[in-house]
Amino acid sequence: MGKIFVGIDLGATNVKIGCFDGEINLIEKTSVPTNHDAGPEAVVEIIGEATEKLLADSGLSKNDLAAIGIGSTGQFNLKKGIMYNNPNMHLFKNVPLRKMVSDRLGKPVVLDNDGNAACWGEHIAGAGRGVKDMAFFTLGSGIGGGLISDGKLVHGFNDNAAELGHMIIYPDGRLCGCGQRGCVEAYASANSTAARAAEAIEAGAESSLKKVLDQKGRITSKDVYQHLETGDALAKQITDGTAKALAIICVNMVHSTEPARIVFSGGMIAAGDVLLNRIKEYFNEQVWTLKAESVEICFATVGEDTGIIGAAALARDARDG
Amino acid sequence: MGKIFVGIDLGATNVKIGCFDGEINLIEKTSVPTNHDAGPEAVVEIIGEATEKLLADSGLSKNDLAAIGIGSTGQFNLKKGIMYNNPNMHLFKNVPLRKMVSDRLGKPVVLDNDGNAACWGEHIAGAGRGVKDMAFFTLGSGIGGGLISDGKLVHGFNDNAAELGHMIIYPDGRLCGCGQRGCVEAYASANSTAARAAEAIEAGAESSLKKVLDQKGRITSKDVYQHLETGDALAKQITDGTAKALAIICVNMVHSTEPARIVFSGGMIAAGDVLLNRIKEYFNEQVWTLKAESVEICFATVGEDTGIIGAAALARDARDG
Repeated sequence: MGKIFVGIDLGATNVKIGCFDGEINLIEKTSVPTNHDAGPEAVVEIIGEATEKLLADSGLSKNDLAAIGIGSTGQFNLKKGIMYNNPNMHLFKNVPLRKMVSDRLGKPVVLDNDGNAACWGEHIAGAGRGVKDMAFFTLGSGIGGGLISDGKLVHGFNDNAAELGHMIIYPDGRLCGCGQRGCVEAYASANSTAARAAEAIEAGAESSLKKVLDQKGRITSKDVYQHLETGDALAKQITDGTAKALAIICVNMVHSTEPARIVFSGGMIAAGDVLLNRIKEYFNEQVWTLKAESVEICFATVGEDTGIIGAAALARDARDG
Repeated sequence: MGKIFVGIDLGATNVKIGCFDGEINLIEKTSVPTNHDAGPEAVVEIIGEATEKLLADSGLSKNDLAAIGIGSTGQFNLKKGIMYNNPNMHLFKNVPLRKMVSDRLGKPVVLDNDGNAACWGEHIAGAGRGVKDMAFFTLGSGIGGGLISDGKLVHGFNDNAAELGHMIIYPDGRLCGCGQRGCVEAYASANSTAARAAEAIEAGAESSLKKVLDQKGRITSKDVYQHLETGDALAKQITDGTAKALAIICVNMVHSTEPARIVFSGGMIAAGDVLLNRIKEYFNEQVWTLKAESVEICFATVGEDTGIIGAAALARDARDG
């Protein structure tokens, strides 16, 4: 049996693939277009060919391969290894992805969703190292999540746990893309942060961001942080709102699974300490006084490879792989 | 080795003790005053004597005893078996309770907090039977909680997980006894439900409850439900607020640990279907539309023995007992 693990990050746009040794050190990685419009069988063939080429380019063969991990966009029955739906890959309905990739490459496959794989990557190789209880948030266009309790990923009874961005913090508040009102995602994702700034300007708020909105027709979360640095009052107010929403969700994690560490990742952490410190300040202001809480709130350290690292590590660590 | 398990529910007022067979069928139970003002050693002696008497009354001896489980009020380091603080038992600071009871009775002791023990009791013998993922709430003077994920109690990194009543659902909302604002406990506990009714009347709301407040000087949650039955509009509005707060927390549990079942227990479930149905209605109104959620929201079925049942079952089931 081989000692190499392959980690696959299957997104709607690209498939990222890495091969790793047993310590989950990266040997080589690649990225190919997913081409999901060609359908599941074509995508599995793309994955198979790219994996074989990656192994060959690394001086390895399939004989060296122990197992494959896939972290994928979509909704799953993980026990059965089936992607039953995917809003971003419309031909993927009830696809037995685990079996298809396993048949194509002749090795065991562990399947999980992309949030869990990224969370596991950060747990194995990043800001989540050394703790058994961890909550993980990706602050991107939406807010994804992952939960580790007592050293294991929390999957929930229907493999749909840790949709942490859709915990409600402001009942009857802003409408979220998921259909709920008041999700943390509707306030603190990169898109929602930018949207709250644009809405405030359209409602008449004064801000140096108005010029950006007028010129580009839109504002990004990056614009907000840039104008925060130059002292814009609205940018500060919007950032405060984002930080407070994230602090509330940190309080709620402490009172549910009580993680030792809460890790934020995704594009928005580029804002840096100005955001992180504000989250911590709001957390200390909002959390109970019954006892001191020692949870560490921090930013991810792994970066873009966390998906393939986590997937490879899941292939190594999963008991039922 | 014996095959009998003793379950102890240690409260600030009474110690309830039950002895059970290996299937956790109750053989006999008793209840004695805790007398916590006499200090930890005296309380352990009370527990020891009452347990020995209970066994004798059941025709059993300590030789028949396999292990003892304790579910207790207080705050713990469970790995060390220490109660380090207890707001309701002021002499109990850094008490090595597990070792003390084990030394007194000569058998292994498993210690957990009362919320977890009650949750495990409901899991073993009540509304949580047959599921591996469960959230549990006690709606009493406060709101306690318990969480089971993949068949195991969630303890968190500091043994303080599942303080579910202190998840914030209305930031900057009502002040909770814990020092936070907007906890679900500040809206939906029995005490908070009654307090919201009294405050509304004092602020001028018309209600048949006004007469109760004037006569008794206070309102209980039971009063609220009684006046709900007779059609009082304020009682309906207050009950709706309680149900909505509980529904929001159900949504949030679905998006965090994704339980198959959410079980409410405690005095307030005496309100019956009028409360349960309203929680379900609000849940269906508030939860996302991305996918259908099949979580069952229900009331506990075990009743007052859930603490001793759960404690005895933990003594049987705990691996590190």
